[in-house]
Amino acid sequence: MALASSSTVHLPAPIPLITRRSLLAPCAAYRTPDAAAAAAELPHQKQRSNSTINLPTTLSNLLHLHLTPKPENSLESLAVALPADRRTPTESPKEDVSSLCSELHGPGDWSRLLNPLHRWLRREIVKYGEFAQATYDAFDFNPFSEHCGSCLYCRRRLFDKLGLAKNGYDVTKYIYAMSHIELPRWLERSIHADTWSKDSNWMGYVAVSDDTESHRIGCRDIVVAWRGTIAPAEWFGDLQGKLEPLGSDHGDVRVEHGFLSIYTSKSDATRYNKSSASEQVMEEIKRLVSFYREKGEQVSLTITGHSLGGALALLNAYEAASAVPDLPVSVISFGAPRVGNIAFGEKLKQMEVKTLRVVVKQDVVPKMPGILFNEKIKKFENVTGTLEWVYTHVGLELGLDVRSSPYLKKGLDIPGFHSLETYLHLVDGYLSSDTEFRVDAKRDVALVNKASGMLREELRIPPCWHQSANKGMACNSYGRWVPPQRDPEDIPSPYRSGP
Amino acid sequence: MALASSSTVHLPAPIPLITRRSLLAPCAAYRTPDAAAAAAELPHQKQRSNSTINLPTTLSNLLHLHLTPKPENSLESLAVALPADRRTPTESPKEDVSSLCSELHGPGDWSRLLNPLHRWLRREIVKYGEFAQATYDAFDFNPFSEHCGSCLYCRRRLFDKLGLAKNGYDVTKYIYAMSHIELPRWLERSIHADTWSKDSNWMGYVAVSDDTESHRIGCRDIVVAWRGTIAPAEWFGDLQGKLEPLGSDHGDVRVEHGFLSIYTSKSDATRYNKSSASEQVMEEIKRLVSFYREKGEQVSLTITGHSLGGALALLNAYEAASAVPDLPVSVISFGAPRVGNIAFGEKLKQMEVKTLRVVVKQDVVPKMPGILFNEKIKKFENVTGTLEWVYTHVGLELGLDVRSSPYLKKGLDIPGFHSLETYLHLVDGYLSSDTEFRVDAKRDVALVNKASGMLREELRIPPCWHQSANKGMACNSYGRWVPPQRDPEDIPSPYRSGP
Repeated sequence: MALASSSTVHLPAPIPLITRRSLLAPCAAYRTPDAAAAAAELPHQKQRSNSTINLPTTLSNLLHLHLTPKPENSLESLAVALPADRRTPTESPKEDVSSLCSELHGPGDWSRLLNPLHRWLRREIVKYGEFAQATYDAFDFNPFSEHCGSCLYCRRRLFDKLGLAKNGYDVTKYIYAMSHIELPRWLERSIHADTWSKDSNWMGYVAVSDDTESHRIGCRDIVVAWRGTIAPAEWFGDLQGKLEPLGSDHGDVRVEHGFLSIYTSKSDATRYNKSSASEQVMEEIKRLVSFYREKGEQVSLTITGHSLGGALALLNAYEAASAVPDLPVSVISFGAPRVGNIAFGEKLKQMEVKTLRVVVKQDVVPKMPGILFNEKIKKFENVTGTLEWVYTHVGLELGLDVRSSPYLKKGLDIPGFHSLETYLHLVDGYLSSDTEFRVDAKRDVALVNKASGMLREELRIPPCWHQSANKGMACNSYGRWVPPQRDPEDIPSPYRSGP
Repeated sequence: MALASSSTVHLPAPIPLITRRSLLAPCAAYRTPDAAAAAAELPHQKQRSNSTINLPTTLSNLLHLHLTPKPENSLESLAVALPADRRTPTESPKEDVSSLCSELHGPGDWSRLLNPLHRWLRREIVKYGEFAQATYDAFDFNPFSEHCGSCLYCRRRLFDKLGLAKNGYDVTKYIYAMSHIELPRWLERSIHADTWSKDSNWMGYVAVSDDTESHRIGCRDIVVAWRGTIAPAEWFGDLQGKLEPLGSDHGDVRVEHGFLSIYTSKSDATRYNKSSASEQVMEEIKRLVSFYREKGEQVSLTITGHSLGGALALLNAYEAASAVPDLPVSVISFGAPRVGNIAFGEKLKQMEVKTLRVVVKQDVVPKMPGILFNEKIKKFENVTGTLEWVYTHVGLELGLDVRSSPYLKKGLDIPGFHSLETYLHLVDGYLSSDTEFRVDAKRDVALVNKASGMLREELRIPPCWHQSANKGMACNSYGRWVPPQRDPEDIPSPYRSGP
């Protein structure tokens, strides 16, 4: 096997001075932001729109999964030079972005920030993506834990434990969900008979920006992050054609019945879902909006999620925009499937819900459900009879390409293409639809392999390295190994309160 | 799934008072040893011998793999009551066994201590088994580590890191091995080009008892522990019929050529095998024997190993007994395959090498190589022509049965049957060939699932739980995840010295 070390790889583009200096004085290396210059960084290029996509091309692309390799030069355009980077910070500078507040977090349009991708928006997308990633990193997947299916940490410690406290948000509530519909491999369950909850899983959280972060972005930002599922392909394959009407108040609007079930199911017999995820999250959003509006603050709502989480984010945005007047509602989803029919999409547009769908071209999940009957079929309306049964994507798309990154393997890896960390890596390296991977991307590349094996072997990062020591087993003072035990503070409690 | 908790399981035999008391005062609960009484615990029962085994029965047993379930009562004869035990020590009392020194560590015979198994011998077997287990627990299997194939810790820290310092031995030398023969899945290699060693693996160590332990057992005990292989079935399947003469000085003695290659290969081009494993270990044994004999001490040599490690132990015992006059040499092997022909076995007997083969009946490895042509074929000598080509086991056998333990699953699990931790669990519970699992066995049952899934689900111990946090990846002060880095003290060095 040929292995390249950092010293032997040819560097076509020199690493910018800022990175080199940062080896000596990492903090001083941050550039002072020039808000005016950054705000002027606006594109003059074409705007993307789903309706312009050509059906035969899309189907052909789908079947080929975009795996035809690009010319070698793109593969070699960046030094695979992790060792030299191991002593640099892992993030772009945190600038005051309040001058673009309306575009970034308010009612203004994102479209002119997308191609090329404005660096402030890129940083915000990564921030929300990491909020979504937190729902995986902190989820207890271990069936031998009696708290399997809950969050490993209490809400006060969540961001500290995951290194996300730097973002300047406080978690105010955890959301739990159940489903009355049997969905394959959705619910994670403990093997213990006597467990914290038999029916519900931790499904996400509500957080709110602190004073410093609110000042930086120009408004008080409420964020909702929804957890996805680890077996999306298996699951979404089952969903084909199960669109369900949202109710008599919503006209022709129909949404996928599995997503709706998770969002709305409740049962008095449960401990964590006496109210549905929908009721839990809406109660908290309304409480926070009132609280900060009474203080005279501008409030925004940003909902994020990956995969199934992205679908729930859209349902949540629909409900929030309907229920809370004049609240700017944004959705940033990653690898999300289609959720509803064309009427659902129209209604979201009408309510001015801003949606950015971050999509890796090679990922199959955003092609489901409705892999054949979707928005691209509009032109064949007479064939399908009625559009009520056609799934549609909504909002703007930020299209990413696995082939753009010199760090990633080029082979077929369906779970790897869908992995949220792959998405975040590609966002971090994205400049525009027709340029190479960003040379000065700083986000830690090793994170890609947390739960996949997408990184090239030369980087020497083990695949799927995110694992707990001894699966949580601990050796007690008698020398006996005992099953995972939680810190009492982190044991799920039915009592959840506000900030 | 029906799950039994400790409080609901019926207890046919009451837990002895000592266990209950130990919940309150674990240390005070140790019984004061009565050496005379224990020494008198000697059996009057039949001695086991390989030559009395019936060939058709053995073949039939082999084909059935002993999987026909025993009556349910044996399965339920012990409470599956881990939670209650989680606050008790994990070991039997450490008694002064010097009164049985000749039998346990000297030239005396083990046979009268085996059935029923004398509790002092059981404790010694577990001690040596844990020395062998250390070679797995401390081995760097991670191909993404640049030190893959070496020991994770330097010899001074090995026992401390593994909780084995309590045994009172000091590691004096590490042994490295290579092989000139291509053996399937033997050598563990780093994916790094520039690694500590391309050809050699850490293969075991030499240790010696300290003053306290030497006093307890009645002699200065040198122990050699040999590492085995994680894919024995795959490997041993290949070995059929490759017996190689040991050399002109050894008459008809022939041994399996793969084992011999690992034991004797060396190359000046390597860093760790300029001398062979054989030369490394013999130099250290001779040095230690001279050192302690000069001080007027009684010295014994006990060689242990599991699987391939058991085979190397036997080759090592053969060489040590030939090379060091009047040294009592013992072998305690676990799940070891056959090593040599009948002449090899005769020669070991003649040199008075004491061998105890601990064998789980359901394990296939001890049936290899020579699954058809082995010592049981003696009576058909005229069929096979010459015994020179027939593999044989040597010494005494301690036969264990997976079905005897109420903690273990009853299904077919070939790697689980072979796992050393399964062996140690069964030794700990063994009383005699015709009694149930020991009620007061204290060894931590959770250890069984370190690298297997043999424990019953009710015990709620995750299968294969022995894993490092994040595969050794660590987050540095810049927030960047970096590949496994060793403490400089634990980086393998070519300079190895004595005690």
